[in-house]
Amino acid sequence: MIDSPLPTRRRGRPPKDAEGGAATKAALLRAGVAALTEKGFVAAGIDEILGSVGVPKGSFYHYFDSKEAFGLALIDEYGRYFAHKLDRFLLDETLPPLERLRLFAADARQGMARHQFRRGCLIGNLGQEMGALPESFRQRLIDVFTDWQDRTAACLTLAGQRGEIAAGQDCGALAAFFWIGWEGAVLRAKLEGSPTSLDRFAEGFFRMAEA
Amino acid sequence: MIDSPLPTRRRGRPPKDAEGGAATKAALLRAGVAALTEKGFVAAGIDEILGSVGVPKGSFYHYFDSKEAFGLALIDEYGRYFAHKLDRFLLDETLPPLERLRLFAADARQGMARHQFRRGCLIGNLGQEMGALPESFRQRLIDVFTDWQDRTAACLTLAGQRGEIAAGQDCGALAAFFWIGWEGAVLRAKLEGSPTSLDRFAEGFFRMAEA
Repeated sequence: MIDSPLPTRRRGRPPKDAEGGAATKAALLRAGVAALTEKGFVAAGIDEILGSVGVPKGSFYHYFDSKEAFGLALIDEYGRYFAHKLDRFLLDETLPPLERLRLFAADARQGMARHQFRRGCLIGNLGQEMGALPESFRQRLIDVFTDWQDRTAACLTLAGQRGEIAAGQDCGALAAFFWIGWEGAVLRAKLEGSPTSLDRFAEGFFRMAEA
Repeated sequence: MIDSPLPTRRRGRPPKDAEGGAATKAALLRAGVAALTEKGFVAAGIDEILGSVGVPKGSFYHYFDSKEAFGLALIDEYGRYFAHKLDRFLLDETLPPLERLRLFAADARQGMARHQFRRGCLIGNLGQEMGALPESFRQRLIDVFTDWQDRTAACLTLAGQRGEIAAGQDCGALAAFFWIGWEGAVLRAKLEGSPTSLDRFAEGFFRMAEA
């Protein structure tokens, strides 16, 4: 994306109405997530993203101040989306806490399968590419991981209180371990086009937590 | 690299002597590994790689048939380098087997620290970028992971025979778990510019193996 031929900054006409503008912005974010989870930031072309939404090149800067701002918006959007998804699973009081995390992992696996394991994690992808990205991305990416980890740690702490995981485990460290390994598993699943690494990591992790 | 302005294919003059040619090729591979472990394949520029070695643009095709061939050579080179390094640690009969793997991880951590955690793993980087890379890379990358895993599994099997790890563990699965998680930890260390994730993953992994 960084290297893609972008239109020179030009205001053009404002969108006809605010509602249509918000819908277009949302569509651009969706298309951006699809492109970046598959190809990464550097390789994803702005032209391709605009084209898939049917937005003319000249209109890009109605919605985002710069390519960097678009990237930051994508990080925020994706971070929020998964925080919400995590909550939906991890705060479900009808289930034992550890089972909630297990179901989150199963849902994420299903999400990858839906796209034939071609799309990975936007945060992991951008984290891997950080050496070639605007420095402003770094802290935001770290913050998203920290946020996901904190939600996971709270669920594991509850699991500990209910005796589902081994006593004396540091639930913060365990949550960090989960996200470190899970991102490695997602990377590998994308490479192999298969869920094997996700299953293998999940199996090992839950065995470890319960041990 | 894919998108970088490459010289049009042109044979130019052959290198003066075979020895100098081999040295230049080796220097190009070293520079390629440095660029790709830091920035990834798509963002690394051929110009930058050639420039750092002092090779003129027109000479690139003396050494490699195409950008794709250069990428494949880098994968092979890096895979071999780490296979050799793994052997150096994992076949060291003066040490208990599990300690050998621990020292390999410590050495890899030191390698990242030497470059201020800016360089990650070439295989992990390219695996993450696979959605934007020549399809010929995929099986080679998978093969490298399989090779590293097999060497690790042999060491863990020995650790099992000597009672260093818990009985009944599937050493193949444990080795796969190590490489899935370790690649996630390298990704995160690069993002954070810190060894925390490497230490955290290693600590959790060895606790798990011994449990």
